[in-house]
Amino acid sequence: MRVRHKPWAKDMLADHPEYVVAEPEKLVGSWQDEFKNSHPIHLEIGSGKGQFIVNMAQKYPNINFIGLEMFDSVLVTALQRALEVDLPNLRLIRADGRKITEFFQSGEISQLYLNFSDPWPKSKHAKRRLTHENFLTNYQVVLKKDGHLQFKTDNQNLFEYSLVSLSQYGMVVDDISLDLHNSEIPDNVMTEYEEKFSSRGQAIYYLLAHFK
Amino acid sequence: MRVRHKPWAKDMLADHPEYVVAEPEKLVGSWQDEFKNSHPIHLEIGSGKGQFIVNMAQKYPNINFIGLEMFDSVLVTALQRALEVDLPNLRLIRADGRKITEFFQSGEISQLYLNFSDPWPKSKHAKRRLTHENFLTNYQVVLKKDGHLQFKTDNQNLFEYSLVSLSQYGMVVDDISLDLHNSEIPDNVMTEYEEKFSSRGQAIYYLLAHFK
Repeated sequence: MRVRHKPWAKDMLADHPEYVVAEPEKLVGSWQDEFKNSHPIHLEIGSGKGQFIVNMAQKYPNINFIGLEMFDSVLVTALQRALEVDLPNLRLIRADGRKITEFFQSGEISQLYLNFSDPWPKSKHAKRRLTHENFLTNYQVVLKKDGHLQFKTDNQNLFEYSLVSLSQYGMVVDDISLDLHNSEIPDNVMTEYEEKFSSRGQAIYYLLAHFK
Repeated sequence: MRVRHKPWAKDMLADHPEYVVAEPEKLVGSWQDEFKNSHPIHLEIGSGKGQFIVNMAQKYPNINFIGLEMFDSVLVTALQRALEVDLPNLRLIRADGRKITEFFQSGEISQLYLNFSDPWPKSKHAKRRLTHENFLTNYQVVLKKDGHLQFKTDNQNLFEYSLVSLSQYGMVVDDISLDLHNSEIPDNVMTEYEEKFSSRGQAIYYLLAHFK
């Protein structure tokens, strides 16, 4: 994704604490208090411009959604989307995906989403892929025992890598599609990227898996 | 695969005991004696007209290969191919894949191949798919502890089904390709079917997995 510098983004994020959690490490273990309910919490790592997480939050008011994104200038678009609607079940975090165990207690997350993560095509960058075992270790910590990881990508190599990585780690695949938009998997909410690439005829790969 | 009736096939198979093992259940635990060496044994279930298993046997003289196929009139083509060359490391069995535990001792097989197995597309026929858990149970018995299952298909639905089935069973995926012929996976030996379908631009799916 091309990131355009937006010097005003930082201020705008700071001006909206109702959506943007400035110090997520202070909420470890108390996210349901933050949401003022006991609904399950779903986390998207790399939420980008937020189309997915905002639409999910609208569609499922009885689930709490958190979108985590590294870049101010991208996250601010997610914030702008959220501001157009009223979503008490949504929070945004500006942070690196590597840090989730600093933000969430063991088992605090019911579902994790990885959508069109950076493929990092060079082997020497494999450790940066969000399905590398170093990340999986952290997902296993924050996910509930029966929690799931949902992963979508249009990148064949990343999907192949991820299937092997998850399997070698000991995860179990519950559902898979090599062409999500022509599958029987219901209720798919698209990301911006997904809309763009699938409209060009690119197949979308999908999997749902859990830790044993 | 269309099976043409060949009334002479049965007799021809019976005339070549050097390749076609008439009573495989009598060799349980003594296949290496049959091959007169201690080389590893690789088994293809559903070997069809035998292009894969015959070419593998030619390519790897220090591995013993067994092709198992249900239909006389198909297996006889594999026999004809074998008769054109001299392959002391090849045997053929005319039998149902369900029966492998009657033919092989626990751990007697080092590698298993499933190539372009019948997809049995209807859900009610899922039990007939060679990657259904009922078959996996038998594969686990006959495969050595560090043995692998290699699976190729051009059928997207069967590949998706198989990935979930293997994973749920507890198998670990070691390698995967969603486009084998454009992958870095080396030394692929093609089946007749694979040659035909890949020449039409159909992607070939591939996986390698082991039991834990």
